[in-house]
Amino acid sequence: MAQEKIPVGILGATGMVGQQYISLLNDHPWFEVRYAAASPRSAGKKYAEAVAGRWQLTKTYAPHVGNIIVEDANDVSRAVAAFKKGGCSFVFSALEMGKDETRALEEQYAAAGIPVISNASAHRWTADVPVLIAEINPEHTDIIPMQKKARGWDRGFIAVKPNCSIQSYMKPIHALVKAGYPVQRIIATTMQAVSGAGYPGVPSLDMLDNIVPYIGGEEEKSEKEPLKIFGTIENGVFKNAQFPKISAHCNRVPVTDGHTACISLEFASNKPSLEEIKKLWAAYKGLPQEADLPMAPKQPIIYREEDNRPQPRKDRDADKAMAVVIGRLRPCNVFDIRFTALSHNTVRGAAGGGILNAELLKHKGFLN
Amino acid sequence: MAQEKIPVGILGATGMVGQQYISLLNDHPWFEVRYAAASPRSAGKKYAEAVAGRWQLTKTYAPHVGNIIVEDANDVSRAVAAFKKGGCSFVFSALEMGKDETRALEEQYAAAGIPVISNASAHRWTADVPVLIAEINPEHTDIIPMQKKARGWDRGFIAVKPNCSIQSYMKPIHALVKAGYPVQRIIATTMQAVSGAGYPGVPSLDMLDNIVPYIGGEEEKSEKEPLKIFGTIENGVFKNAQFPKISAHCNRVPVTDGHTACISLEFASNKPSLEEIKKLWAAYKGLPQEADLPMAPKQPIIYREEDNRPQPRKDRDADKAMAVVIGRLRPCNVFDIRFTALSHNTVRGAAGGGILNAELLKHKGFLN
Amino acid sequence: MAQEKIPVGILGATGMVGQQYISLLNDHPWFEVRYAAASPRSAGKKYAEAVAGRWQLTKTYAPHVGNIIVEDANDVSRAVAAFKKGGCSFVFSALEMGKDETRALEEQYAAAGIPVISNASAHRWTADVPVLIAEINPEHTDIIPMQKKARGWDRGFIAVKPNCSIQSYMKPIHALVKAGYPVQRIIATTMQAVSGAGYPGVPSLDMLDNIVPYIGGEEEKSEKEPLKIFGTIENGVFKNAQFPKISAHCNRVPVTDGHTACISLEFASNKPSLEEIKKLWAAYKGLPQEADLPMAPKQPIIYREEDNRPQPRKDRDADKAMAVVIGRLRPCNVFDIRFTALSHNTVRGAAGGGILNAELLKHKGFLN
Amino acid sequence: MAQEKIPVGILGATGMVGQQYISLLNDHPWFEVRYAAASPRSAGKKYAEAVAGRWQLTKTYAPHVGNIIVEDANDVSRAVAAFKKGGCSFVFSALEMGKDETRALEEQYAAAGIPVISNASAHRWTADVPVLIAEINPEHTDIIPMQKKARGWDRGFIAVKPNCSIQSYMKPIHALVKAGYPVQRIIATTMQAVSGAGYPGVPSLDMLDNIVPYIGGEEEKSEKEPLKIFGTIENGVFKNAQFPKISAHCNRVPVTDGHTACISLEFASNKPSLEEIKKLWAAYKGLPQEADLPMAPKQPIIYREEDNRPQPRKDRDADKAMAVVIGRLRPCNVFDIRFTALSHNTVRGAAGGGILNAELLKHKGFLN
Repeated sequence: MAQEKIPVGILGATGMVGQQYISLLNDHPWFEVRYAAASPRSAGKKYAEAVAGRWQLTKTYAPHVGNIIVEDANDVSRAVAAFKKGGCSFVFSALEMGKDETRALEEQYAAAGIPVISNASAHRWTADVPVLIAEINPEHTDIIPMQKKARGWDRGFIAVKPNCSIQSYMKPIHALVKAGYPVQRIIATTMQAVSGAGYPGVPSLDMLDNIVPYIGGEEEKSEKEPLKIFGTIENGVFKNAQFPKISAHCNRVPVTDGHTACISLEFASNKPSLEEIKKLWAAYKGLPQEADLPMAPKQPIIYREEDNRPQPRKDRDADKAMAVVIGRLRPCNVFDIRFTALSHNTVRGAAGGGILNAELLKHKGFLN
Repeated sequence: MAQEKIPVGILGATGMVGQQYISLLNDHPWFEVRYAAASPRSAGKKYAEAVAGRWQLTKTYAPHVGNIIVEDANDVSRAVAAFKKGGCSFVFSALEMGKDETRALEEQYAAAGIPVISNASAHRWTADVPVLIAEINPEHTDIIPMQKKARGWDRGFIAVKPNCSIQSYMKPIHALVKAGYPVQRIIATTMQAVSGAGYPGVPSLDMLDNIVPYIGGEEEKSEKEPLKIFGTIENGVFKNAQFPKISAHCNRVPVTDGHTACISLEFASNKPSLEEIKKLWAAYKGLPQEADLPMAPKQPIIYREEDNRPQPRKDRDADKAMAVVIGRLRPCNVFDIRFTALSHNTVRGAAGGGILNAELLKHKGFLN
Repeated sequence: MAQEKIPVGILGATGMVGQQYISLLNDHPWFEVRYAAASPRSAGKKYAEAVAGRWQLTKTYAPHVGNIIVEDANDVSRAVAAFKKGGCSFVFSALEMGKDETRALEEQYAAAGIPVISNASAHRWTADVPVLIAEINPEHTDIIPMQKKARGWDRGFIAVKPNCSIQSYMKPIHALVKAGYPVQRIIATTMQAVSGAGYPGVPSLDMLDNIVPYIGGEEEKSEKEPLKIFGTIENGVFKNAQFPKISAHCNRVPVTDGHTACISLEFASNKPSLEEIKKLWAAYKGLPQEADLPMAPKQPIIYREEDNRPQPRKDRDADKAMAVVIGRLRPCNVFDIRFTALSHNTVRGAAGGGILNAELLKHKGFLN
Repeated sequence: MAQEKIPVGILGATGMVGQQYISLLNDHPWFEVRYAAASPRSAGKKYAEAVAGRWQLTKTYAPHVGNIIVEDANDVSRAVAAFKKGGCSFVFSALEMGKDETRALEEQYAAAGIPVISNASAHRWTADVPVLIAEINPEHTDIIPMQKKARGWDRGFIAVKPNCSIQSYMKPIHALVKAGYPVQRIIATTMQAVSGAGYPGVPSLDMLDNIVPYIGGEEEKSEKEPLKIFGTIENGVFKNAQFPKISAHCNRVPVTDGHTACISLEFASNKPSLEEIKKLWAAYKGLPQEADLPMAPKQPIIYREEDNRPQPRKDRDADKAMAVVIGRLRPCNVFDIRFTALSHNTVRGAAGGGILNAELLKHKGFLN
């Protein structure tokens, strides 16, 4: 059985998100980690040695992964060699280097014939690279053949996922838009978990009896990325949507995992009732659910009626940590409605979302 | 010197806010605590005994306060007797009982000739009771003679302060309104400290690796109270302002003291530049500053240029914990501007604000 | 299949430990929750309603449990009726009332023919009641026939588990004692999780930027209970062991789950080497492992070589949260050795330990 | 007045302890900061710029300090030049570089005629360098003339303070020893604040819902340094005391400031009663109190009778954060007594302790 699984590689395998990929792929029915690459510092060590004392998760890695010799992520030729020996069909990129370096390196992998499914922000604004949330814009994979052609790549390509901060409210908004209730404007205040900054990341002196009302670059990402996700393909590149206009306040709070967002939302025209909205959310499904993809949550949006939910510690792990949990839907005193939404930032918002994108791409035949 | 100070009483003296009153009045130049009342459970004990094992603050109480015999707050006659002996000119109310009981009890004190300067929410919507923020609406004390007359009270009256959740953004907004930039709409998301819920208050299981997106009654208070504060007196009662319309999302976060608010704000017509706003905030002063009241912060609004401020632990104690600290002023992608504001909830937002109100009332001759 | 499972009841089913019982029994191969009792406040409600807004765990309860009508735990006749209808073969007691009431009530259940497997402390010092840690003193169940006879009970009996604070170091010590290295003296400092105090339990103001160096009654339990567990049965009652002498310092720290203990230990005579100790711990097994009881951890003691382990968040869930995780074994500068040990307090130290005791009793034929 | 103050320099002025020195010296009656040096990265900047966004304390720095141009701490000649112009009579060293570099650099300053009062650990085991706790071993300054002579230094010398982890229990022990109750053995478990590791220091992922049972090097320091402090001068070098033997377990807990220690203590021979111990602690005074040194706490040891004290957040700031606060004195089940002690680690345990040492040295004529 195991030999029939698709062998995958992880770039940035020793970091926070890389560890989450490794852990989530432990028992994956389709994919198996056979290649791990990281910074030169880790290269040449067994994976188990490379993460000794730095492993952050409760769940550990599969024994065979502990024995993988970590490669230098900068050395694409090693991945190509692994690919040729059947050990690396595509890579998940969880690279944590600078934006320019990441962009160039991911292109080198793609050019070398190795598809890159990336968690990094480097290519989110590359005009022919899709930013995928599998339930929302699976049709954006249509750009991949155009991307390959324009770049002269045969087998390789690049597909990315958006920032973790928007994951909690994109699906609830999509459910409304899809049902004929276009959304005009949103004011979103997030309270984000520290795991989003990696390890060591946020100093404890900033998170004891304190919050920090700022996360560099996060508000811009939160405002712009949704417009690409809701955009369309025109002439081989993405054209952004005009709406919803979003204003984001991003805060760091003393929570390990789980980003919470307080949303005030204004509809463009039609306004559904609160009851109708709850029904739309409960019924919301996308291609991942229809195709029964392994990482897909059964119910992507879970609504809780209790006054005081969602809460990060209690709700972040809902449905393999892949569901969005919402509560407190009520009329807004200024816009139309308001609610609170929660999503697990390193699973749904990072490695889990990346794996779901890979499943989508495999389902559509892009990873053969 | 000490015998010339005005003797004051504290109702609810053993609770969280009561302790803060006691502590802040330790060295007050005008007032001296001579009377303390609390629930029957504490009545008859020395104050030091009544708070043993329950004192929450770093700063302790004055030695003479430790020896005060705590009275039963329900027994107004004890306060009247103390008043007659020169031991209780007026009371600060930090009562923590039900709303109806508090309302009735505060009226009994006032009817008995003892002015009540209250922190409780019970009388905030009583039509002839002023809700005071000393820098914003000191002229609202004009209603006190009308209140006395209508109630048939000779010396007693009731004046209250608003909820702690709005303290961080009311003064910055007032600075703009006062300068000719009326504010139309506000979406405010607060991240509030646990001390606002008293002791024992919020369970630690809710505040470890967690936040709670709900505080009962807080959003309604945050949306309505500003309209009374910005209102006018007509025919002996308050008439609310129509603007700003406010939508509040109130969250509880793992912080001991200091409520933070993320504000998106829309002007009604004229829009000042960001630089002009900073100047208005820096120059903002009110009657407390002009009259040099002892509890007044020298500069009521402090703006910090650093990206990552204000932060509760670092900024809440600015200027005796009486100043509001603001940061991150920037254009809003949806409304006109956005910023983050912080205020110490049990000092500026509770006992310190109450003391400043008493100083205002004394300054205006209402406590003679 | 399900109808062949043994029907069990939970007393105190809505509290913190009661919830943990309910959750851990969701998929138990032998036992099925069919009866739930709590305080009169919850009686008459569906379990789902009774815990709405109060459920503390990430994992939820089985759907059929949500529909159970909660009974009044004080009303033993309801349990007897349920027992007669095949709905309650024995009960887990997670009662949170006073000690005297608990003691009396547990005896009423036993007298009525319903075995009581208790998490409460009430009967730990009853001379003919065994305090069981399934790996350490399974032979203490031998007292049950004597207990029944002395009390005149036919089917019912009482068996309890010890305090959560000692769970992390009792098995490591037992492994040494069992191998011929008697332990003379121990100084133990614990850093205990807040879930040990239930919900609402410890106020958040005590656990933000703070620790509390005191837990009422905990040090006495930590020092005395091990002596009964290491004791012997003589003339139908337990006779305590004389050693080890234990001195405990019990502290509350800002951790949700997982009690950590720093142990300095002095041997009575023979002193094993550090390497030998690690081997003894790795090889340690008891009856639960030999009989392959469902709740038994495969390896009861896990030793981690990293300098900085065990840590509560990373290690408490090891092997269904039933294993003890140890680290930092090194010579003691004053006694012989020292180490740090960790155990999940509401699973291994409460509900999980109770279930394992029930499995032991079932295995030995006491629950037929 | 100000021009009569002794001008002092701070090495490592921008770090956590350096900031604390700067802040504590704001209003010092004897000393005034006129020279600040740090790493080359900060050199050449105004102090205000060098710490912008990195200042960790609530209290800020004096305006004149914000304008000091930061020097490169490696460049001793700059300090000598400042000294010659009357701008740097001696330096406080809060260097955070490697041990060997620190040792060499501090010697260069001393050789250049600038006394070094150090917080660093580099010279704690240099045989002719005193490790001072001003109340305990002020007579250890007697070695300074010998140190100067042996090194060929005229004006410069080096004096250091011990590790922050031992500050909470050294004075209580000294009070007992001094009164004729020699202490034989101690088992100490510490729960240490994150500020001890500087900034960024401990990652927040390690301190949310977690503790870490290890601090590199801390246990060794805790066990050895007390023996030098209790030691004697023989032939120009220190000879360690033999007792007390100490075994330390050092843990990191989610607290900003304040190290707590749980102590079990065995006397060598005479055993005072608990009441006598409390009297000895209450009466404990040393040279700093007798000479009324500015930074000296009035009462160096404060005992609290409440069950649940000391607590870091409530007790660390006692008497300018320079007092030790003790509670829970009770018989030990294994040794003679046990108690819990608390000390502010960056004030008493670092900068405040350093300033008190400087005051002691000034009082004794070593800083003229």
